[in-house]
Amino acid sequence: MKILIINGPNLNLLGSREKAIYGDMKFEDYLYFLKSLFSEHIIDYYQSNVEGEIINAIHSANNEYDGIILNAGGYTHTSVAIADAIGGIQTPVIEVHISCILGREEFRHKSLIAPKCMGSIMGFGLDSYRLGILSLIK
Amino acid sequence: MKILIINGPNLNLLGSREKAIYGDMKFEDYLYFLKSLFSEHIIDYYQSNVEGEIINAIHSANNEYDGIILNAGGYTHTSVAIADAIGGIQTPVIEVHISCILGREEFRHKSLIAPKCMGSIMGFGLDSYRLGILSLIK
Amino acid sequence: MKILIINGPNLNLLGSREKAIYGDMKFEDYLYFLKSLFSEHIIDYYQSNVEGEIINAIHSANNEYDGIILNAGGYTHTSVAIADAIGGIQTPVIEVHISCILGREEFRHKSLIAPKCMGSIMGFGLDSYRLGILSLIK
Amino acid sequence: MKILIINGPNLNLLGSREKAIYGDMKFEDYLYFLKSLFSEHIIDYYQSNVEGEIINAIHSANNEYDGIILNAGGYTHTSVAIADAIGGIQTPVIEVHISCILGREEFRHKSLIAPKCMGSIMGFGLDSYRLGILSLIK
Amino acid sequence: MKILIINGPNLNLLGSREKAIYGDMKFEDYLYFLKSLFSEHIIDYYQSNVEGEIINAIHSANNEYDGIILNAGGYTHTSVAIADAIGGIQTPVIEVHISCILGREEFRHKSLIAPKCMGSIMGFGLDSYRLGILSLIK
Amino acid sequence: MKILIINGPNLNLLGSREKAIYGDMKFEDYLYFLKSLFSEHIIDYYQSNVEGEIINAIHSANNEYDGIILNAGGYTHTSVAIADAIGGIQTPVIEVHISCILGREEFRHKSLIAPKCMGSIMGFGLDSYRLGILSLIK
Amino acid sequence: MKILIINGPNLNLLGSREKAIYGDMKFEDYLYFLKSLFSEHIIDYYQSNVEGEIINAIHSANNEYDGIILNAGGYTHTSVAIADAIGGIQTPVIEVHISCILGREEFRHKSLIAPKCMGSIMGFGLDSYRLGILSLIK
Amino acid sequence: MKILIINGPNLNLLGSREKAIYGDMKFEDYLYFLKSLFSEHIIDYYQSNVEGEIINAIHSANNEYDGIILNAGGYTHTSVAIADAIGGIQTPVIEVHISCILGREEFRHKSLIAPKCMGSIMGFGLDSYRLGILSLIK
Amino acid sequence: MKILIINGPNLNLLGSREKAIYGDMKFEDYLYFLKSLFSEHIIDYYQSNVEGEIINAIHSANNEYDGIILNAGGYTHTSVAIADAIGGIQTPVIEVHISCILGREEFRHKSLIAPKCMGSIMGFGLDSYRLGILSLIK
Amino acid sequence: MKILIINGPNLNLLGSREKAIYGDMKFEDYLYFLKSLFSEHIIDYYQSNVEGEIINAIHSANNEYDGIILNAGGYTHTSVAIADAIGGIQTPVIEVHISCILGREEFRHKSLIAPKCMGSIMGFGLDSYRLGILSLIK
Amino acid sequence: MKILIINGPNLNLLGSREKAIYGDMKFEDYLYFLKSLFSEHIIDYYQSNVEGEIINAIHSANNEYDGIILNAGGYTHTSVAIADAIGGIQTPVIEVHISCILGREEFRHKSLIAPKCMGSIMGFGLDSYRLGILSLIK
Amino acid sequence: MKILIINGPNLNLLGSREKAIYGDMKFEDYLYFLKSLFSEHIIDYYQSNVEGEIINAIHSANNEYDGIILNAGGYTHTSVAIADAIGGIQTPVIEVHISCILGREEFRHKSLIAPKCMGSIMGFGLDSYRLGILSLIK
Repeated sequence: MKILIINGPNLNLLGSREKAIYGDMKFEDYLYFLKSLFSEHIIDYYQSNVEGEIINAIHSANNEYDGIILNAGGYTHTSVAIADAIGGIQTPVIEVHISCILGREEFRHKSLIAPKCMGSIMGFGLDSYRLGILSLIK
Repeated sequence: MKILIINGPNLNLLGSREKAIYGDMKFEDYLYFLKSLFSEHIIDYYQSNVEGEIINAIHSANNEYDGIILNAGGYTHTSVAIADAIGGIQTPVIEVHISCILGREEFRHKSLIAPKCMGSIMGFGLDSYRLGILSLIK
Repeated sequence: MKILIINGPNLNLLGSREKAIYGDMKFEDYLYFLKSLFSEHIIDYYQSNVEGEIINAIHSANNEYDGIILNAGGYTHTSVAIADAIGGIQTPVIEVHISCILGREEFRHKSLIAPKCMGSIMGFGLDSYRLGILSLIK
Repeated sequence: MKILIINGPNLNLLGSREKAIYGDMKFEDYLYFLKSLFSEHIIDYYQSNVEGEIINAIHSANNEYDGIILNAGGYTHTSVAIADAIGGIQTPVIEVHISCILGREEFRHKSLIAPKCMGSIMGFGLDSYRLGILSLIK
Repeated sequence: MKILIINGPNLNLLGSREKAIYGDMKFEDYLYFLKSLFSEHIIDYYQSNVEGEIINAIHSANNEYDGIILNAGGYTHTSVAIADAIGGIQTPVIEVHISCILGREEFRHKSLIAPKCMGSIMGFGLDSYRLGILSLIK
Repeated sequence: MKILIINGPNLNLLGSREKAIYGDMKFEDYLYFLKSLFSEHIIDYYQSNVEGEIINAIHSANNEYDGIILNAGGYTHTSVAIADAIGGIQTPVIEVHISCILGREEFRHKSLIAPKCMGSIMGFGLDSYRLGILSLIK
Repeated sequence: MKILIINGPNLNLLGSREKAIYGDMKFEDYLYFLKSLFSEHIIDYYQSNVEGEIINAIHSANNEYDGIILNAGGYTHTSVAIADAIGGIQTPVIEVHISCILGREEFRHKSLIAPKCMGSIMGFGLDSYRLGILSLIK
Repeated sequence: MKILIINGPNLNLLGSREKAIYGDMKFEDYLYFLKSLFSEHIIDYYQSNVEGEIINAIHSANNEYDGIILNAGGYTHTSVAIADAIGGIQTPVIEVHISCILGREEFRHKSLIAPKCMGSIMGFGLDSYRLGILSLIK
Repeated sequence: MKILIINGPNLNLLGSREKAIYGDMKFEDYLYFLKSLFSEHIIDYYQSNVEGEIINAIHSANNEYDGIILNAGGYTHTSVAIADAIGGIQTPVIEVHISCILGREEFRHKSLIAPKCMGSIMGFGLDSYRLGILSLIK
Repeated sequence: MKILIINGPNLNLLGSREKAIYGDMKFEDYLYFLKSLFSEHIIDYYQSNVEGEIINAIHSANNEYDGIILNAGGYTHTSVAIADAIGGIQTPVIEVHISCILGREEFRHKSLIAPKCMGSIMGFGLDSYRLGILSLIK
Repeated sequence: MKILIINGPNLNLLGSREKAIYGDMKFEDYLYFLKSLFSEHIIDYYQSNVEGEIINAIHSANNEYDGIILNAGGYTHTSVAIADAIGGIQTPVIEVHISCILGREEFRHKSLIAPKCMGSIMGFGLDSYRLGILSLIK
Repeated sequence: MKILIINGPNLNLLGSREKAIYGDMKFEDYLYFLKSLFSEHIIDYYQSNVEGEIINAIHSANNEYDGIILNAGGYTHTSVAIADAIGGIQTPVIEVHISCILGREEFRHKSLIAPKCMGSIMGFGLDSYRLGILSLIK
């Protein structure tokens, strides 16, 4: 399978940002682990802080990938446009979050993206990504 | 007259995205029809999925065009910044929508952009664009 | 084509009422202009301040007219019954407003009628009516 | 007993309006059935799309009828004035609805009229009327 | 001075309706008292249960009367259209209520009409009408 | 026909609890009256104060009874789970209430159960049960 | 009659404060006019910017005055304690406001005090006070 | 590892209830598949429609199991008590849902339970359970 | 006096659950202390995690006990049915809480039960129970 | 122990104000009873209708008293400043109310003060004060 | 320049109150520092816990001072009357806060005072006062 | 010190946009003034209309600058992602606004960014920037 992981805003800071919530591992290191764990699959990675570039990436991945693992970060709660992008393609999208967004600040309790996704996984730390891939490759 | 049509996020997918709502014609094809219909006018076209680039386009169009037809897509409901951009220029802006946003999901019922526009046209399918141009060139 | 324009409450005061918002042309004069502009079509006109009489007019127009241009005035924001009337007939109804209702008082931001109409046009002054007719006769 | 059935706005369209919700029988035909079913009682019928005429009918029925079966249609959710009219007379009023208003759009979930009525019956299709009469003549 | 008193829905029931709130005097009797009290002025009276007819009466009174005393009854809380009618004429309108609407059910706490009126008087029983006339003829 | 009446929490106290609202007849006595009134039908009765046992009863009644008369008491306003149970079976369920829930405390205005039921009858006192049975056996 | 006028916070600034809303007459001058207008009555005056001192004044006036004219200013919208004070005495209290509070900022739309008063008069400018006295001495 | 799966109300109907949402496989059959898939682990199963019995089961599982997979069904959205139970034990709890609760009715958008769980997995159909177990046994 | 203490869901975990909030004493040990402190009275104890069983206990205690001390735990905020049970009996009920529910999560700020109780005591830790008994035996 | 009782606005009217809610005993008489009941302790008393004076009293009591019994009356629901004062001192404060504030008007359901107090006691009539003292002197 | 610093409720406790939020310096010491820093200006200081006295101070400062630095403490969020006082004078008022009120409890997120002030400075600790003075004396 | 000023969307229009609110000076001219005023410090400037590029700039400034002056324009009210970016770096960020956002449209009353900043300064026109720098270099 060919899988694309898309990380949204501030996830490039993983390992140095609010470690109590997000842990101290860089995503690059975790990605290396994921690739070796699922060595029989192709796992590509894209990160952007720009809402519209994430939309572009979702559009481009359509029919190019068998599945998308999307952590939209802060855009999860505000972006009608990313939700529309997911609704506009055929490739299934899995929503993942490192923390449990339903247990943090009030404005993080709502996901505009979830209703358009195949499924949502949240709260397992970086392991949410592994579970997301497992949901695709069963 | 010189008119700029600006399309926001996901409108590049027209013709393939949620056809029950948006129809199955590509915007490029419709644009060709519009240009021939209004052959005595100059009709330019710009599309971007990036909120800030739409703002840039609005700024640039100021005093360059006689009117802007804007379908801000998902940013219609969330973008204070695009509304501010419209309020900051002299060129009149016409808001158009393919579907009736007041009859869809709750979060689409509000347009932050409408109060800054010269007028709003929604629900006529692609014909909303034609009506928008007609409102400018009377 | 045979088109019926229905004006709701207080629109009989056009030309003398809150001119800053609604302009100073009487609707009768504008109607004369519209009829000459669209002389190949039949344009009838009905105005009432009574919610139920507007419902009666909508019912009667069914299958008698090819389209209805409806400015429901203050009933736009409160009348479930007019919305039900539009939903109960086959003739398409176009919602028009002289001002941009989304940019005025909070209680005018909601249109109960829009979801039942073929399309909505607002904010163009009296020109909203001309655009409404253009949307029907394309 | 002498019973008055009052139907509010758009219920004159029964049989042709949104048949998936309201069925395809005309109210006149159903009324014929009701009258024969309850041939030992007098059943009168009044329909109006005008809110104030419904109020007039409620006033006039006071002490003239032993009970009123009222389907206020769209006015159910918006009319303080009809609720006041019911509260102002002695004759008991039974609220009926063809569909379950609590299961449709958000703005139909509230009945201003129910607290002033002797009872409410909803969701049984036209049979709601028969049950309403049964509640009066026990 | 020439003054028009307009009473809205259900106020024709005064004297028999919810006497604990509205008292047991008929409005006709009170009107007789008012006319004799202000015998040097012309006091006309109009009552209707129909929202649109009240709008018609307000329109007709424009420039015909020096002031209008309006008790819009249940329409006070729901009628954008009557508020628009008041805003559309030059004759000053005084809002009166028999009871204190701010101390009754939640849905009576809001007056759409008050912001368009010259002043509001509520809670004094029928005496609210006398005070309303006094506010006009000082 | 075989009909099951299910009473929810506190309805075992009927006859002794808040008599101003619920009357002073025990449900057992009323049940005796109902059984004799509908002697050609089988009427069974179940009462529980436990939300989950009511769900169990609804499950068990599926295909065993021709209809269920359900007064879910206080669970009406809070139980997603009972609503799901009704949605999960084939046997039609009629919602009944002794009092008009829409005219009491704010938290009783909402019925989570109504949208899943065949119909709702409220406000007729114990007679709501008789009307509920009549709605099934027509 | 013995009447006490109580003015709340900032009303000591009348004549110099936001003249577009409150006019340019000092309250002392208006009071002189009122006293001469109602020379057969005793009219006392008290002003304080302190919420608790207004409460003290209301308590002290009990049984000492035949009526209180109260303009609680900004405390109208926030003071449960002043409302309780009015509810705790026998002397009738008339609520007056210079402007129509229902037509200004959202937070001024609510009067906690009105439900405890004999009546409310608002929007007539300083004339509200004269009308308030007239409501007491009829 | 020793894992307990707890299913809440109506999940005993899986396979026959609202198949469009929940599919047509019985949970017992799926459990058989899970047990064979994870044959090196002990997987126990408990189902109840009673909120309090689910709490009892959570209490009993503490220190007896290495992890709990909990689908609380309709109690997810209403049960403070189950959330408290999870917060009161040491054994980690994984929240699973067959459908994406964030994309269904408004009252299902909130999970009181999620903030107390180690993680949440929703929307993958029955596969949510497999992913839940995988999150425990990594 | 004969007093029944009823503890709701999760209070059987006292001493081991969230000790920072609830302390580390088991309720059994505290009960022993209470019984010796009030040795001249009979103090019985009942605990259940099942909402309906708590209702049963309240019903059974009616006229059997002189007072009930009720800590309804998580059901405090959600159970209309328990509130109805308290309203349905004669024995006075005292609401107690270990923590100050008004100072914790938003969803704990509301007590449906308090308006039906003789009084409420919260925030004193286990001492709330002693104070509750003292309120009964004065 | 040295205990200060602080009573807020209108509590000086106890015995004459709304007796159905507050009873007919003067607080001075009750205070005499309290002092004799707890003769081994020093009980001081302060009452003010002025919010800021209550704050002053709280500040002054810090380290001078072993505990404060505070009935903030109407300020309970509106005073951020009194809540801040309690949070700013070391002496424990017990909140008491004569009536159950959660069972009265909506605006009394919220206590800004409770989260800053050691505990809250409400609904026991004047006995709430005795219980408050008992909570301090155990 | 002549500048008045007004501190509202509980700011007299600075240095001993909630030091984690407000720091441990007394305002008197900080004032000494401010006066020496701005020795070419006159800096006066007033503190009161009484809302009305703060209003009095604002009134008195009008035309006596060139600017007011106001920290209204807990009244920031609740006092319409202080906001009215600021709107009623000519002297510019600068709002300052020690902490960032937008990042604390929900009820502190709103400032009724800010819209009437020349500017707002918050979150810099005591340095907010220095910045406030700098904004006046540029 | 090394300071970075970041301006968000539409602030490149300063001097030509809505001059009544924002003044008629271009930011480049003001920047020149600021640089000369603080000539002993390094002041860099960045402007973008793209939300994600602002996030990039915040990330890049981390540890490169001693402080950031951020006017996020319309993104202030909507961008969870920019707030997260500020929370993810060590360099202190000062929020500035030209106008008082709390006194304009409702949707501008909320700042998602403020709780993550060292302080906020608003309403002083362009002088807000000077004050922001002064807060950093004290």
